[in-house]
Amino acid sequence: MRVLGVDPGLTRCGIGVVEGVAGRPLTMLGVGVVRTAADAEIGDRLVAVERGIEEWLDAHRPEMVAVERVFSQHNVRTVMGTAQASAVAMLCAARRGLPVALHTPSEVKAAVTGSGRADKAQVGAMVTRLLRLDAPPKPADAADALALAICHIWRAPAQNRLQRAVAAHHATKGRTA
Amino acid sequence: MRVLGVDPGLTRCGIGVVEGVAGRPLTMLGVGVVRTAADAEIGDRLVAVERGIEEWLDAHRPEMVAVERVFSQHNVRTVMGTAQASAVAMLCAARRGLPVALHTPSEVKAAVTGSGRADKAQVGAMVTRLLRLDAPPKPADAADALALAICHIWRAPAQNRLQRAVAAHHATKGRTA
Repeated sequence: MRVLGVDPGLTRCGIGVVEGVAGRPLTMLGVGVVRTAADAEIGDRLVAVERGIEEWLDAHRPEMVAVERVFSQHNVRTVMGTAQASAVAMLCAARRGLPVALHTPSEVKAAVTGSGRADKAQVGAMVTRLLRLDAPPKPADAADALALAICHIWRAPAQNRLQRAVAAHHATKGRTA
Repeated sequence: MRVLGVDPGLTRCGIGVVEGVAGRPLTMLGVGVVRTAADAEIGDRLVAVERGIEEWLDAHRPEMVAVERVFSQHNVRTVMGTAQASAVAMLCAARRGLPVALHTPSEVKAAVTGSGRADKAQVGAMVTRLLRLDAPPKPADAADALALAICHIWRAPAQNRLQRAVAAHHATKGRTA
């Protein structure tokens, strides 16, 4: 499974591409950041984010896109830009027919470090270890995007099993009704 | 000046197109709502909003797009969908090189009713009167989108004068420096 992770933001939008399956060593295919100028018009910034994400999708052809789930309770000053950038990421994926998965920051931290309250350094250290890199990817947004992709690869089998169980349950109910 | 107003939302995204200049009677060119199913995937909903807005832009070729400015302080449950739909509207406009203007709900209410705290019914009544319609546009999102476009047409001259004054001031400073 090849997953493109997006840590959404207008100033820095982290992108990380990871390939692999749960229970096997993972491979990093690419990591980077799409940046837009803070003093540019908001519409132009969104166009720049769109263009950047499209280039990553073209270059790596992932099967899934995992995006950080944005909460409105967080930092009120930055949450709007985060929500807008995440909307562009989800739009780009859905336009190509790619499934979009959302994971919360604590789900991602718990997946890669074992603790939902791990700090940036811990996440960076585990991403470095799990992908066998020489050093933690910089900036933190890039490491977070890789962590999102890893989280998705590891959670997907459990989510699929759950969906199959729910579907089987409904099918059984349908037959006995 | 032809302005397309957008009252952003995922379930109902209001669209209204108004033509005119400040101080002269205004003309409504179109009004409607782009709807998406609440049970659809978020990415697919954003694609549907994008397609709907593109159709309105193609049909009416506005010179400007006015979008309601979203505040994260408002209703926490719906603000994310609003922010995401507004991102799509701004993206569609900027991709075509159209200027995007943001107005707050109270600026819009104050522009069309004289009070920043007017209710939906008052806004609907004034939109009906100002555009010489037979009845208030339904749903309220459609009326709000028209109110946004009207607000922009009326505020634009003052904003342009202010921008020219600031530019002139800087030019003078530049010469005397």
